[in-house]
Amino acid sequence: MLKEVNIGFLGFGNIGAGVYKIIEQYGKISFAREGFKANIKKILVRDANKRRDINVDKSIFTQSIKDIVDDPEITLIAEFMGGEEPARQYILNALENKKTVVTANKEVIAKHLVELENVAIKNNTGLYFEGSVAGGIPIIKVLRESLQANNIFEIKGIINGTTNYILTKMSEEGRSFKDVLFEAQQLGYAEPDPAFDIEGLDAMFKLSILSSLAFHYEIPVDKIYTEGINNITIEDINFGRELGYALRLLAIAKKRDSEIEVRVHPTFIPLNHPLAAVRNSYNGIFIRGDAVGDLMLYGKGAGDLPTGSAIVSDLITASINNEKQRHIYSTIDKGFHDSYGMLFNDNWETEYFIRMTVKDKPGVLAKIAGIFGKHDVSIASVIQKGRNGDSTPIIFVTHKSKEISIKDAIKDMQNEPVVMKVDNIIRVEK
Amino acid sequence: MLKEVNIGFLGFGNIGAGVYKIIEQYGKISFAREGFKANIKKILVRDANKRRDINVDKSIFTQSIKDIVDDPEITLIAEFMGGEEPARQYILNALENKKTVVTANKEVIAKHLVELENVAIKNNTGLYFEGSVAGGIPIIKVLRESLQANNIFEIKGIINGTTNYILTKMSEEGRSFKDVLFEAQQLGYAEPDPAFDIEGLDAMFKLSILSSLAFHYEIPVDKIYTEGINNITIEDINFGRELGYALRLLAIAKKRDSEIEVRVHPTFIPLNHPLAAVRNSYNGIFIRGDAVGDLMLYGKGAGDLPTGSAIVSDLITASINNEKQRHIYSTIDKGFHDSYGMLFNDNWETEYFIRMTVKDKPGVLAKIAGIFGKHDVSIASVIQKGRNGDSTPIIFVTHKSKEISIKDAIKDMQNEPVVMKVDNIIRVEK
Repeated sequence: MLKEVNIGFLGFGNIGAGVYKIIEQYGKISFAREGFKANIKKILVRDANKRRDINVDKSIFTQSIKDIVDDPEITLIAEFMGGEEPARQYILNALENKKTVVTANKEVIAKHLVELENVAIKNNTGLYFEGSVAGGIPIIKVLRESLQANNIFEIKGIINGTTNYILTKMSEEGRSFKDVLFEAQQLGYAEPDPAFDIEGLDAMFKLSILSSLAFHYEIPVDKIYTEGINNITIEDINFGRELGYALRLLAIAKKRDSEIEVRVHPTFIPLNHPLAAVRNSYNGIFIRGDAVGDLMLYGKGAGDLPTGSAIVSDLITASINNEKQRHIYSTIDKGFHDSYGMLFNDNWETEYFIRMTVKDKPGVLAKIAGIFGKHDVSIASVIQKGRNGDSTPIIFVTHKSKEISIKDAIKDMQNEPVVMKVDNIIRVEK
Repeated sequence: MLKEVNIGFLGFGNIGAGVYKIIEQYGKISFAREGFKANIKKILVRDANKRRDINVDKSIFTQSIKDIVDDPEITLIAEFMGGEEPARQYILNALENKKTVVTANKEVIAKHLVELENVAIKNNTGLYFEGSVAGGIPIIKVLRESLQANNIFEIKGIINGTTNYILTKMSEEGRSFKDVLFEAQQLGYAEPDPAFDIEGLDAMFKLSILSSLAFHYEIPVDKIYTEGINNITIEDINFGRELGYALRLLAIAKKRDSEIEVRVHPTFIPLNHPLAAVRNSYNGIFIRGDAVGDLMLYGKGAGDLPTGSAIVSDLITASINNEKQRHIYSTIDKGFHDSYGMLFNDNWETEYFIRMTVKDKPGVLAKIAGIFGKHDVSIASVIQKGRNGDSTPIIFVTHKSKEISIKDAIKDMQNEPVVMKVDNIIRVEK
């Protein structure tokens, strides 16, 4: 005899419809294996009469959040409205009414995880958010329930499919950023207003969640240095490849002793790094732990069914845990080392790719090398070729240097008459 | 106040010592986060006085299995003896005494999972085996607890580090199989008797476990077609690369309708496939599900700490589940579709790379093409070059063909006077 679990949906867009489909199809077996029958009892929508591609009995639609959070039969609530408000408020209402919440809302979780977990703990109910990061890739559960025995000290993630699609196409087809972005918008891979993806904000929210889980420490989004791919040109990509690198928008979190660095920016990685094999709109998350060593997860970071796969998994896990009254709240350490204050380091050390346009005359390289030397920046490789008459491109890759040293050196470069332009500065990770 | 969990170890080799170290170090925090304190109470060893690199109070060593399985205070038993017997018997004894077992024993799990799960169910206790496949990669938990909502229909895995190390070195350094195997043995990456790895048996056991979990159906090891890498030459690898392929020992499981195919063999995959980026002794497991799409996990498939990471994770999960009396036994479907008998298909359809040595004279290609045509095998590409006087190598890649058609065509080739030798036949997967 299967136990019925009544579920309320908040929102019924693309992801909501994907979850509905999975539950109605293969998901029936998945719930039954654990002894449950899932019943989608109510769905909060703005317009019940909107034309939808999916066949749902309209009587379960409601426009009132109260119909869901106040329904005593509903024990699980799945939120996929997106955006900060009113989603956050609805999730809070649900938790306060002792309902377990499953959400795919990266913005709400990145900004309010600690608050929401505290409310969940107080009400002895559950909060799950596998769908909030990297779609179908089960990175949240792996961090919480498979790598628990590890001191995780590094994460490098390709966690935004839109920018990875654009960078792959630019690289493989030699096309410009604008051209590929336009195509991605036509194909629906990029939003009409692409800023959220292109400028790195989407990856920033996701990195906040991942690094909080990995380090058991709250990582506020405003501590994350964030730089998008808007300024990347095909010249950067081509010169990088010549030096043995692939370009990716990486979300990076590192921990050493009591220091944390968190940053999202375009990054060169070696062509034979496993993350370099993450092409098109796929996501890849590379983790280093003291016991497990290097681990990578790769898969579809978005889409109705991949994200639905994560959400339905959470709904099944939540059903099991609710039955046994065992909830999961180990995100932020309390008690063990509360006093253990972490410092956010923004003067990190890494290698740098620097592309400049300089005057094409003797002695230029010596002058530039002198400026780098003055700031303790040592050079690993240089490309200088293709004379353009008066000016010529020159590319440096540095050895490991402090961010501040590079910034200071670049300031000096801009005052040096032989340097016509500093075209781009791209960090390199090994 | 932390709840003490008493653990007994069966065996204390490399992996056991890794688990011990993790529990004594970072693992303390990991257990405490969930409310537990782990106490390693007894360790079964053959010789308590053997010199060990690890500092352990000798009073916890015992040579009697009874001291562990009959100790009422011990609730969790971790087995890392390896081999079929007496490990299987000890695991059975432990389960019958209502102790939860965590094992890394691929042979016992591959051969006896159904039997052991039934005993665990009968005794209302737990059985966990994350460490039995792919070391630190949490593939068991991902299949059971993250991809539950998926109908999984394909697995392709690089799940033996020794053979992957050998194939990577052969490919990247142009060295012979024998030469690299010898080096791997010197470095400790290959056993003095390498047959278990080289001939594919290790991968066969692991594939049995993975495919049973993925398909919720018992996949006996003797249903798995298994072929090792012994006959791979540098010529195969070089010609393959020229055609755009990397060579890997793949463990493949596919399900379609009520048909299953399971096979372990050297396989060419496209150079831009994510599995082609799995180099050296790393493992990679590529999964296709109806909702999640393509998913890959990559990491260290062996070693004391990576495998220890998986085992300690199981010990923590088991502690939580034991407290709540919720055990995990959804490996094989019962009830839903017991009548759903699966067929094991050994006449699969794939592409083939066929390398032959033929007489160097006009009309040879036409003769061979005629033989392929007679067996309905159509050719996708041919390489013929470098005349060696009387003989010349010739390489064909076929379009998708049935295994039986290829075998029949090869039989005819061997009776055809212009064919001097069929050097190798390697399957190709896209």
